[in-house]
Amino acid sequence: MRTIQVGLLGCGTVGSGVAKLLLHQNDIIQKRLGAAIRLKSIADIDVHRDRGFPLDSNLFTTDARSVVDDSDIDIVIEAIGGTDMAKDLILRAIENGKQVITANKALLSDQGSQLFRAAAAKHVDLGFEASVGGGMPVIKTLRESLVGNTIACMSGILNGTCNYILSKITDEHCTFEAGLNEAQKNGYAEADPTLDVEGMDTAHKLAIISTLAYGSAMNLSDIYVEGISRISPMDIEFADQFDYRIKLLAISKCRNNAIEARVHPTMIPRDNLLSSVNGCLNALSITGDAAGDILLYGRGAGMMPTASAIVSDLVDISRNILTGSVGRIPILSFQPESIRHMPVIPIEELVSHYYFRFAAMDQPGVLSKIAGILGNYRISLKSVHQKGRKSNSSVPLVMFTHLAKERDVRLALSEIVKLDVVCDAPMLIRIEDVNGGI
Amino acid sequence: MRTIQVGLLGCGTVGSGVAKLLLHQNDIIQKRLGAAIRLKSIADIDVHRDRGFPLDSNLFTTDARSVVDDSDIDIVIEAIGGTDMAKDLILRAIENGKQVITANKALLSDQGSQLFRAAAAKHVDLGFEASVGGGMPVIKTLRESLVGNTIACMSGILNGTCNYILSKITDEHCTFEAGLNEAQKNGYAEADPTLDVEGMDTAHKLAIISTLAYGSAMNLSDIYVEGISRISPMDIEFADQFDYRIKLLAISKCRNNAIEARVHPTMIPRDNLLSSVNGCLNALSITGDAAGDILLYGRGAGMMPTASAIVSDLVDISRNILTGSVGRIPILSFQPESIRHMPVIPIEELVSHYYFRFAAMDQPGVLSKIAGILGNYRISLKSVHQKGRKSNSSVPLVMFTHLAKERDVRLALSEIVKLDVVCDAPMLIRIEDVNGGI
Repeated sequence: MRTIQVGLLGCGTVGSGVAKLLLHQNDIIQKRLGAAIRLKSIADIDVHRDRGFPLDSNLFTTDARSVVDDSDIDIVIEAIGGTDMAKDLILRAIENGKQVITANKALLSDQGSQLFRAAAAKHVDLGFEASVGGGMPVIKTLRESLVGNTIACMSGILNGTCNYILSKITDEHCTFEAGLNEAQKNGYAEADPTLDVEGMDTAHKLAIISTLAYGSAMNLSDIYVEGISRISPMDIEFADQFDYRIKLLAISKCRNNAIEARVHPTMIPRDNLLSSVNGCLNALSITGDAAGDILLYGRGAGMMPTASAIVSDLVDISRNILTGSVGRIPILSFQPESIRHMPVIPIEELVSHYYFRFAAMDQPGVLSKIAGILGNYRISLKSVHQKGRKSNSSVPLVMFTHLAKERDVRLALSEIVKLDVVCDAPMLIRIEDVNGGI
Repeated sequence: MRTIQVGLLGCGTVGSGVAKLLLHQNDIIQKRLGAAIRLKSIADIDVHRDRGFPLDSNLFTTDARSVVDDSDIDIVIEAIGGTDMAKDLILRAIENGKQVITANKALLSDQGSQLFRAAAAKHVDLGFEASVGGGMPVIKTLRESLVGNTIACMSGILNGTCNYILSKITDEHCTFEAGLNEAQKNGYAEADPTLDVEGMDTAHKLAIISTLAYGSAMNLSDIYVEGISRISPMDIEFADQFDYRIKLLAISKCRNNAIEARVHPTMIPRDNLLSSVNGCLNALSITGDAAGDILLYGRGAGMMPTASAIVSDLVDISRNILTGSVGRIPILSFQPESIRHMPVIPIEELVSHYYFRFAAMDQPGVLSKIAGILGNYRISLKSVHQKGRKSNSSVPLVMFTHLAKERDVRLALSEIVKLDVVCDAPMLIRIEDVNGGI
């Protein structure tokens, strides 16, 4: 029986998960693959750390280069994270003709084109199922299952940290800061949570899946990004009163050969299935013209779900090695010569329903001033709500709009914020019934 | 550029969808595959029927054998349905060395082993993604994405007709018959709905996915099957009062090398995501030991979703042909020599929570008689509810049990039904919080 030799770069959370899965599930993988997968070596600076399960110390080296240069190794798994060293090692592995698997969404979305070109030039496979959606089969569904579909749009909850915090604020009426603390205490948020809570991690993932879905190379800078740190319990309560939930959504659409891609807190109707995705869970809805709306739901991160996705790539690529069919699926779903650069629609062109919350003085004429400015910018109101009464002090004034253009909204808000009856920067949340409300 | 030639058997709803997709999405499929797929011939008894889009009549033949015998054709798609003719044609196509795709779940679950053996012997691919879950990537997720997981259980809503009818009864408090009429009027149910409403269609699908998930050949007769025709609006209202929804679930579990597989109306908590799957939509939850719970949701049937799944197989198999890697994934997910025959646990061994509804005389002592018999069989009650009062007449008496064994339940009910204070056959619905309530 043929044996596929694997080298693992990095044995932190994700790397340990892969090693654990390869050791514990060796038998079932072999029964499915019809060949053995052998973890030949692991590069990590910390050889002796207890990883919670027995791992032969002879597998370890501190010299990552020796792994990517090992002529016995067929497939290299990069689980180091970060961009510089990871990129150098991946490029060197590709140069050595090895197949590569990575979960490094920051690297892929930021400098992926260099990796994809290198892999195509050397005719090796580059697997990255684990970069988006953890154990959910996001990449495979886009590249393989929906191959007969024109994909019109996608929307999803792709960051467990943000979803955990928003769920906490919703359920426990706590502040963003308290929700974040809780997430950190439970291991759902990093010590520096910026990448997660400011939406960049979600944007990394959206760039990758949008490139695959629409066949147009997306840059991270093409995506409008807004995080959740300004969301207050008050906004979540107002949302609830009007049967909405607030979620950090990744949304992309392709229309008339142009792409719209954005990450921001979004109000969605409570009966939309995405509203029921709570805690650290993730979900992605994809709309194909033939398949209709498909929703994938599951654990979008974590040691074992991520390892599950990496092993799925590992077995896929092993099958390609065993049958001599490396490169049978183009890395970016479309053949390289068919990848286009479609224009990206700027956020100012967005037409959406909006929720505004102003901190306004509780005195006569305030509503008329604000509504007047909105009217000047063609923004008409569906409803207006003032919460409580406080003379000589500010109260929350909430408005829901009909469809309006983002450019008009921004201009109007920049005028409204200058009114002396408005005390604070207004809150703006876009409202969507994503994908027709599946 | 290489061209893959395709022969289509049957041009009814599914076949027309495939032809439409291949014609309309020709360009995007080519950009992804890097080769052309050409629909060379279509076998159907009705050549001239208007299929809603222009279809070259020169493609048609009434002689299906001429298609499977055509030496130019690489891949045959069987979309005839039924078992006898479909099976003969598939076997002949395999014998001729052609790759085959079918959506025929009745054939696969009933006589699949003959087809799988024939395909393995001739080293051809046999694709059947469209047999379960329409446009949802069920087969691919089981065979490829979860390849590193031991799968513990699955539960899902796999029949759109039943789910449509149950949703109608829930929303409109109508009878089963009225719900079925509505489904037929809207094209969601066949003129003869028996296969759907009695649960057999769901069982066909459960047999296929359980075989793939656990690596054990399942027979249709291994599955306990109960349909939805006895569900009354009263049961749905009682369920609602206690925060449950009633769904026709396919459930299978693998524990200690034995399999449990059943299809029956099930009460699930309202906050379980499957409770929100309404109308003709389908969903399947799969629990892997590494990936955790994954849920797939989408259109489980219909012309274009089914065609989308068939085209996904078509492109997969075309890639195998183009790279000389036919057979790279074993048809049943496990290598043939690793497929086992695990014992199936009989329904009598099931341990579950139960809902009972009796039509009982409204007179003193009735509850004590019924509860006494239940107690004799070690069935303890969580709650008892009588609806309304009617002297000298029967009223609904509803009970929710703690965990009990199905064998005990059956014996107890067979005694209870003989009591002269019990007027009608009791209703029994099993209660589950499937997959830990994802």
